Amino acid sequence: MLEDKNVSKTSLAEIGEFGLINQIKEGFPIKLESSIKGIGDDAAVLDYKKDKIVVSTDMLVEGVNFSWSYMPLRHLGYKAVVTAISDILAMNAIPKQLLVSMAISNRFTIEAVDEIYNGMKYACDKYNIDIVGGDTTSSLSGLVLSMTAIGSAPEKDIAYRNGAKENDLIVLSGDLGASFLGLQVLEREAQVSKVNPNNQPDFENYSYLIERQLKPEARLDIINLLKELKVKPTSMIDISDGLSSEIIHLSKESGVGINIYEEKIPLDSIVIRTAEEFKINPITCALSGGEDYELLFTIDQKDFEKIKGNPHLTVIGHVTGKNEENYLITRGSEQMVPLTAQGWGVETEDEDDQH
Amino acid sequence: MLEDKNVSKTSLAEIGEFGLINQIKEGFPIKLESSIKGIGDDAAVLDYKKDKIVVSTDMLVEGVNFSWSYMPLRHLGYKAVVTAISDILAMNAIPKQLLVSMAISNRFTIEAVDEIYNGMKYACDKYNIDIVGGDTTSSLSGLVLSMTAIGSAPEKDIAYRNGAKENDLIVLSGDLGASFLGLQVLEREAQVSKVNPNNQPDFENYSYLIERQLKPEARLDIINLLKELKVKPTSMIDISDGLSSEIIHLSKESGVGINIYEEKIPLDSIVIRTAEEFKINPITCALSGGEDYELLFTIDQKDFEKIKGNPHLTVIGHVTGKNEENYLITRGSEQMVPLTAQGWGVETEDEDDQH
Repeated sequence: MLEDKNVSKTSLAEIGEFGLINQIKEGFPIKLESSIKGIGDDAAVLDYKKDKIVVSTDMLVEGVNFSWSYMPLRHLGYKAVVTAISDILAMNAIPKQLLVSMAISNRFTIEAVDEIYNGMKYACDKYNIDIVGGDTTSSLSGLVLSMTAIGSAPEKDIAYRNGAKENDLIVLSGDLGASFLGLQVLEREAQVSKVNPNNQPDFENYSYLIERQLKPEARLDIINLLKELKVKPTSMIDISDGLSSEIIHLSKESGVGINIYEEKIPLDSIVIRTAEEFKINPITCALSGGEDYELLFTIDQKDFEKIKGNPHLTVIGHVTGKNEENYLITRGSEQMVPLTAQGWGVETEDEDDQH
Repeated sequence: MLEDKNVSKTSLAEIGEFGLINQIKEGFPIKLESSIKGIGDDAAVLDYKKDKIVVSTDMLVEGVNFSWSYMPLRHLGYKAVVTAISDILAMNAIPKQLLVSMAISNRFTIEAVDEIYNGMKYACDKYNIDIVGGDTTSSLSGLVLSMTAIGSAPEKDIAYRNGAKENDLIVLSGDLGASFLGLQVLEREAQVSKVNPNNQPDFENYSYLIERQLKPEARLDIINLLKELKVKPTSMIDISDGLSSEIIHLSKESGVGINIYEEKIPLDSIVIRTAEEFKINPITCALSGGEDYELLFTIDQKDFEKIKGNPHLTVIGHVTGKNEENYLITRGSEQMVPLTAQGWGVETEDEDDQH
């Protein structure tokens, strides 16, 4: 994922929309049996045999969802694929195809667009995804990416948000808060570079955080692991907006309350150290940070033995009862703090919209 | 499709993203048997049984693909649905579901967003489409819409661009050029209104043209008609960029040459009259105008009897031989003019990108 600084500069006008489409088509030959027809017709044609179709879409806007001040082009492409397929994984389904649309301003060179697609290709190769279509158009201002991910699963495997039931365990893959802190580090260095253009940012101590922000991974391994372990989650969601917000989604859709334990929430040591440096509670980074793309799911208690001791999975709480509230039990069980969409503590006006 | 001028004004910040999603979810209850799960989870879940999946995506950018100076919000929503499903129809497939993503600037009120969704709802009801998902995000400048259309067809029915063969007939639904001229009329009036804000545009004489530009229809009726007539097109495309460009696509993908006859190209009388007013050749409007969303397809000669005399279908030419060029035969067979991506006449540099 190293950047090549010696790239040539070709304007998009020189190559034209059709030239660009041809280039994309050549760069992304289809490889999956389920991709019958890819780029180059009015629509793509797919075949999932008896499996159900799972489909999701995301939009990424320059200046809103990402900034060039810290996001290299190739990483943007990689991350766009990861965030898109994470929604398919969150259904306990396997992502297979992507449609990629871009609105690009003329200040972009073809080499810049190539860099974005190179990042996408890297992710598509890693996760075995076909890009089967898309659209390119001009933009009067910044870059806009729209990603539609399509996947499939046998009907019995699909995990919705609404299946959590009393006494189920709350399970989380990986650890939380690193992506949010990575963004804080990158934004701090971008500010310093504005004041002092000769600033050489030293990211060495923060490499895990920055990698989690710029090049997050989608947890396809966890979906495969659950299949191996013969565990069907009763409900599932991915962590895009922060643990607290996702707990509330599962709770609301399933009509149950959820308790999670502060001391169980997995945090990397660099997360704890850097949160202190930024004078933030590391639990706040986990609850409200977001962009971790870990999977949060509920399992029946009888499946506990199957996942116990797995280094990728942590039980962080349990489902209480029907229509209960959601709480964070603080360290040493001292307090029960209501979870809110913003994280934890006092409920706010805005948060009520979700109930 | 009349605009209600007495609308209240609520900022998007007041309702929030979740409020907006809930509102959309309530406004678009799923109705199709193939829509298993719609808005409200990480992804939608669909079931097409034995049929193949057909999927396509389009991006619409304010100031590039549409302008508020002539495009009312509700019409934008309607047209966005029509353009999206037209790509599915162009595969001889039936559109079923849509994913709708929007990047919206804060200057939009919730009532404005509602107007766009009202137009979408109107089209979705007409064409029997479920909106099953999407994404909303902020935009720093204009509105960006991304539409992903999904549909299905039995494998044997799907018509690709690459199936046209020697001696096939070229068939077109409806008539061409009206949408392009509608845009010219709307832009002329927008210019006049800039200079004289009291200008009362009189669109009465141009109503067909303006309707074709602001509220085009997708030719689901033609797909159903072809099924009734038991005609399977050998290749198919929709007219989004102009007849000439679409002929070149079919020709290139099928590896054949195509001749079309100027005198066969269907033009409404108001197209001929208005083209004269704008001092444009009406054939240029048909060849290069675009946004007609008619269907262009090829059929085997043996199917001619089945479509002969149908008021919705016109035979405008035929496939010549393998690797031949594409020509417009002018009125009275006087000249054979090469077709180019820009329309007709001398080939340009840019057009070569497609070959």
